[in-house]
Amino acid sequence: MNELHPEEGIYSKIEEAYQIIEKKWVCLIIGSLMDVPKRFSEINTVIPELSKRVLTERLKELEAYGIVLRNVITDRPVRSEYSLTNKGHDLGVALKKVEDWAEKWL
Amino acid sequence: MNELHPEEGIYSKIEEAYQIIEKKWVCLIIGSLMDVPKRFSEINTVIPELSKRVLTERLKELEAYGIVLRNVITDRPVRSEYSLTNKGHDLGVALKKVEDWAEKWL
Repeated sequence: MNELHPEEGIYSKIEEAYQIIEKKWVCLIIGSLMDVPKRFSEINTVIPELSKRVLTERLKELEAYGIVLRNVITDRPVRSEYSLTNKGHDLGVALKKVEDWAEKWL
Repeated sequence: MNELHPEEGIYSKIEEAYQIIEKKWVCLIIGSLMDVPKRFSEINTVIPELSKRVLTERLKELEAYGIVLRNVITDRPVRSEYSLTNKGHDLGVALKKVEDWAEKWL
């Protein structure tokens, strides 16, 4: 990022990206889905501090952003799994750099 | 990030990193300092939506984290400039990946 120019599109894109990742738990939820799709309860096991209410909210928001995909599996009983879209996976790859930074510096 | 294990150090490091970047404006402040050190008013020009009160707070927090360095320049009048430490610059490089993602996907 060089000088920021509010009138230019890239500035608002960057702001939007930061608005997405600034929401508490979003980065950890994306990270939890990097390797394999997970059911709601599996995400909750990986991030136990996260309440079911907030996880539900965040997953809906991430679906609306096209970052997370809810897949309904028509087994009996019907169940659903959450996975990352390509857009979401790419964001996860970027966030991995932040995690590498954490490992090195914190 | 693979499975998260709350008892392990890397999990708390990742959580800490996300707590740092989840704070509103932190990512944009770091981005604004990537190329050259800036005075308080110059950062404010780059991110005009940011109030002076919040910028003051954020810069103090980032100094406490060892991400930002406040350099006092003993000119007349004495003035101060903010720059990134190596730790801060490395975080800026990681965040650049999020900005690249924004440019591609948003």
